[in-house]
Amino acid sequence: MSAPLEGARSRRAGSTRRQFLLGGAVAGVGAVAAVGVDLALNRQESAAKPVSAPMNGELTVPFFGVHQAGVDTAAQAHGVFLGLDLREDVDRDGLTRLMRILTDDAARLTQGLPALADSEPELALSPARLTITFGFGPGLVARAAGAGPSWLAPLPAFRVDQLRPEFSDGDLLVQVAGDDPLTVAHATRMLLKDARGFASIRWTQQGFRRAHGTERPGTTMRNLFGQVDGTTNPEPGTEQFDEVVWSADGWLAGGTGMVIRRIRMDLDKWDRLDRSGRDASVGRTLANGAPLTGTEEFDEPDFEATTAIGFPVIAPFAHIRRARGEGNEHIFRRAYNYDERPLGTEVSESGLIFVSFQADVERQFIPMQRRLDELDLLNEWTVPIGSAVFAIPPGCAEGGFIGETLLD
Amino acid sequence: MSAPLEGARSRRAGSTRRQFLLGGAVAGVGAVAAVGVDLALNRQESAAKPVSAPMNGELTVPFFGVHQAGVDTAAQAHGVFLGLDLREDVDRDGLTRLMRILTDDAARLTQGLPALADSEPELALSPARLTITFGFGPGLVARAAGAGPSWLAPLPAFRVDQLRPEFSDGDLLVQVAGDDPLTVAHATRMLLKDARGFASIRWTQQGFRRAHGTERPGTTMRNLFGQVDGTTNPEPGTEQFDEVVWSADGWLAGGTGMVIRRIRMDLDKWDRLDRSGRDASVGRTLANGAPLTGTEEFDEPDFEATTAIGFPVIAPFAHIRRARGEGNEHIFRRAYNYDERPLGTEVSESGLIFVSFQADVERQFIPMQRRLDELDLLNEWTVPIGSAVFAIPPGCAEGGFIGETLLD
Repeated sequence: MSAPLEGARSRRAGSTRRQFLLGGAVAGVGAVAAVGVDLALNRQESAAKPVSAPMNGELTVPFFGVHQAGVDTAAQAHGVFLGLDLREDVDRDGLTRLMRILTDDAARLTQGLPALADSEPELALSPARLTITFGFGPGLVARAAGAGPSWLAPLPAFRVDQLRPEFSDGDLLVQVAGDDPLTVAHATRMLLKDARGFASIRWTQQGFRRAHGTERPGTTMRNLFGQVDGTTNPEPGTEQFDEVVWSADGWLAGGTGMVIRRIRMDLDKWDRLDRSGRDASVGRTLANGAPLTGTEEFDEPDFEATTAIGFPVIAPFAHIRRARGEGNEHIFRRAYNYDERPLGTEVSESGLIFVSFQADVERQFIPMQRRLDELDLLNEWTVPIGSAVFAIPPGCAEGGFIGETLLD
Repeated sequence: MSAPLEGARSRRAGSTRRQFLLGGAVAGVGAVAAVGVDLALNRQESAAKPVSAPMNGELTVPFFGVHQAGVDTAAQAHGVFLGLDLREDVDRDGLTRLMRILTDDAARLTQGLPALADSEPELALSPARLTITFGFGPGLVARAAGAGPSWLAPLPAFRVDQLRPEFSDGDLLVQVAGDDPLTVAHATRMLLKDARGFASIRWTQQGFRRAHGTERPGTTMRNLFGQVDGTTNPEPGTEQFDEVVWSADGWLAGGTGMVIRRIRMDLDKWDRLDRSGRDASVGRTLANGAPLTGTEEFDEPDFEATTAIGFPVIAPFAHIRRARGEGNEHIFRRAYNYDERPLGTEVSESGLIFVSFQADVERQFIPMQRRLDELDLLNEWTVPIGSAVFAIPPGCAEGGFIGETLLD
């Protein structure tokens, strides 16, 4: 790894789940500010004085570092995922230009600074833990004349899938996540404006989790079925997390693999299932996410336990039994709920934007998905309607750009 | 006004912008809780002990009172608006049953309690200032064999309108607003489940403002054009607000009139306008919302001021000049931004869910809209694509129901 990256590492070491204030960045804004930004910032500063605690809107997640932000960052309330298709004439040089521009946008916007030529600079001033993360699809890596990891390809077809092209695949992934929906909308727009000359939108997905301030930090998310979702996730900052998530492979070293699947949830059908049926389908209680063999969320499930008459307490078809890998098949989940304005005669259009990060999609994700495809009671109420795989390149140091290990 | 309402008044007197903690309500939950809720609540309580400040998720806005909540409530981060059409066989008795059920749902959900037969009770436990507000369209009032206010009808046709039926009109309006998107999604679903036997969905609109914690309370919202939007709003709790908003008219006394218009904003076209053109089109600086004749947001615009060569500083076509009423034509705005997943070949699908409350739509809203229709430079970049008018009935006391002054 190059010297600048080492520098970045020390700046960002231990930064997982730590947040930084706008602070120093404000002093430098004059140079890049469009008309009026100084004024707005001054207003913000003076308004801030009487109160000691920083507003959540002022919190920033560092952009530069060994890893891209938005993977080990405690998940923000709002996530927008863009799947872009490169225009035909974009070659390796064009890709480099594109990624330099997008890196510059992301470096500014995530720190609460307007993008260059930002058309609404005031909307950039409350970062609210904004992160912007880029991923490369198979088509982009081919265009760069690079060799991707062997798993960088559409997932194998699963029986449960009813995939739609408008939610699947794509050359370039942009994940925009933050605690404020207006900030996320503005950042998304700035990135799309700059990408427009190089790529077109293939798909957009918008999701949410609990808002900042709703629950104590660290509370496991519930999905729209009411399930506690993500209990077995490795904890960022631990050795297990590093092992599960970060790749050590060629240009992807310090990066990771991303699977994003749009999973439609049939809430009306789920409604017809009673409480014990729901608990049994997952293998956990909906009340607090405890396994049916335990009392607390983080209790280890006992898959051998049987009832008085000899049936397994956690059924053979239960989701947690089927999802559990043998050996080291862990993934790190960072999912978002979606609940959209239904079109036509539908009553709801809801589900989960399933997102997982893992160093090796083939080894860690696919075996688990095969088991769930074969047998998982939750398949009764869920249908995957979108699927894509991306390589998330490592982070970069100031002056560098995301993707430089592939493109430079 | 009846005795119970007076009781409610004293409970809610001065409650504008004040919030109440879940507190006492938790003690009563055992009676209505589905399996597991007690457990989840206990977990929440014990987790809350080490920290002194209440989480935003725990804050509630009182449901019962002289006025419905969600009008003078400081606007929450997320708003869902449902326009429902009554089924043909729903008569006055059916309407009464429907409004009793929905009132019960709203009274529970807004206080952080599950609805009766709530299918995901745990999703109800973080109210995050949830409010649920009901409005009656012309069709509903006719069905109740009641006489509506004269203004309860579709607005007159404006030249700028390109209205679509899928965003216009409707018999029953439900506004679900809160600071947490998961809570809002769950509450919306519970209300729709209970309404399903009586009504079908005509339209759904989902919008957002700044998240809780992004900005200091009281900061005026910016829309997706970057404009400071709502500066001249009357302040809840003032005499002016009461005069502008609350009706004193028959069964609507203590209620108000609601105009909801979906205004599409052409952000790409707006991008081509330079900063001074933008400022001139509105008559305010985008930097801080000050009128072009002033320096601070709340400075009174000077419509007589002229430049050195005699032109008005605030142009004849400027939005604030055209919007300004002569006499008492004020409205109270409570708008939400929308930014949806674009469909097909579109790059964005963005705009404003314009919402205004006023005692008399005919007298207060229509003259202003006529002036804006005749001449308003902002018409260049905006198109109204949806429009509806509702009568928002007054609030009710415990044991009563929303709409009782019309239906009882």
